[in-house]
Amino acid sequence: LRMKRRLLLVSNSTLHGGGYLDHCQQQIKDFFGKQVTRILFIPYALHDRDAYTRMARDKLKTLGYEVDSVHEAADPVEAVRKAEGIFIGGGNTFRLLKNLYDNNLVTEIRTRVLQDGVPYMGSSAGSNVATVSINTTNDMPIVCPPTFSAIGLVPFNINPHYLDPDPHSRHMGETREQRIMQYHEEPETPCVLGLREGSMLLVEGHKATLLGSTQARLFQRGKTTTEYAPGSDLSFLLTDAH
Amino acid sequence: LRMKRRLLLVSNSTLHGGGYLDHCQQQIKDFFGKQVTRILFIPYALHDRDAYTRMARDKLKTLGYEVDSVHEAADPVEAVRKAEGIFIGGGNTFRLLKNLYDNNLVTEIRTRVLQDGVPYMGSSAGSNVATVSINTTNDMPIVCPPTFSAIGLVPFNINPHYLDPDPHSRHMGETREQRIMQYHEEPETPCVLGLREGSMLLVEGHKATLLGSTQARLFQRGKTTTEYAPGSDLSFLLTDAH
Ligand SMILES: [Ca+2]
Ligand SMILES: [Ca+2]
Repeated sequence: LRMKRRLLLVSNSTLHGGGYLDHCQQQIKDFFGKQVTRILFIPYALHDRDAYTRMARDKLKTLGYEVDSVHEAADPVEAVRKAEGIFIGGGNTFRLLKNLYDNNLVTEIRTRVLQDGVPYMGSSAGSNVATVSINTTNDMPIVCPPTFSAIGLVPFNINPHYLDPDPHSRHMGETREQRIMQYHEEPETPCVLGLREGSMLLVEGHKATLLGSTQARLFQRGKTTTEYAPGSDLSFLLTDAH
Repeated sequence: LRMKRRLLLVSNSTLHGGGYLDHCQQQIKDFFGKQVTRILFIPYALHDRDAYTRMARDKLKTLGYEVDSVHEAADPVEAVRKAEGIFIGGGNTFRLLKNLYDNNLVTEIRTRVLQDGVPYMGSSAGSNVATVSINTTNDMPIVCPPTFSAIGLVPFNINPHYLDPDPHSRHMGETREQRIMQYHEEPETPCVLGLREGSMLLVEGHKATLLGSTQARLFQRGKTTTEYAPGSDLSFLLTDAH
């Protein structure tokens, strides 16, 4: 069985000091290539879908791609069925997942990506929903989706915008690491790839590679955490045992 | 109708540089007073309930109270029915609320507090679950409760550990204020009281007073945010119109 899956899962859409998608624009061009000419954008994670679509459209146009937004389509499911490429942008992960379910897109996107090989790019919340579940989002639960289970394009979870503890902080809320450790106190929880801002994961079939400018931190239930440098082969994450 | 409700809703259980519940120990003694001799502790927000109970028991003993933990009771519902006072500690809000529902305690606690006047103290996650819903928790959604609706002892929501934006941060995740603003983009959302670490809300019947050492920040849908100093009368928050 040939696995056609192609994913670009980005930690963050904007890196400090840069513009929207600037820090990953080369990877976006390499990923969608010349075959894809139109990308279906899913702006469900933000409230103002029109403004969000304009921003994505303007940026992707400079990279050579036309953007159709799913919220402008008469039939969102049909729009996914016809898509050459899919990009789900960041914002609030709960709102995003709820809207995906409300519009019956979760199964449809899974089918298109895993069976038809449609390339999928996600940023932040759009990377969260590509994984097993949204259990490791950083977002506030402003709305309640029917389930935390997500599109399931990979058998692990991601923590985008991964943040190291600040040794000078006097704030007593949990650190990001403590939060992920609490997740792993629960039984049968998958590993969590902490993608620092600036990093992204490229998945091509059964091969996964860390790209970008920062390290990633991998949390596995009952094991010590591990750091990976850009360029690392993380294909072992794609086997279900992980 | 006389409303017997008595609540002490604390932002955080430990303030930087102090010990567990140190910063609010005087308010705890004033709140439970001499009439209460035993407090029912609910340790559901943390994984290690025995260790958590030991910590709460040791601290409250120094203030003159015996602690029974609900997780040591043969029948948790019966334990709530008999409780003279209730304290729900912090940890993970999703885990806490799921465990409250799994043990059929949500309605039981509401009845005991609103009808019987049993004093309720919450800290952090324990303050979140006292409100309308957990939509404004800061915690990671490590488990999925049946609903985000909570005990509903007050008609508004709380954001504990409220944090002002750090002007020097290069991190691009949403600020706390942006997250709460995203909540208020959703229709018919109640106000959110951002309790900074060090602050707490005392509710006695229809009167609410801000206590502690820090200001609180109030977010109301469609209105400008407001700051309140310790000692402020926040009774207007208890009317359903808010
Ligand atoms: Ca977000
Ligand atoms: Ca917490």
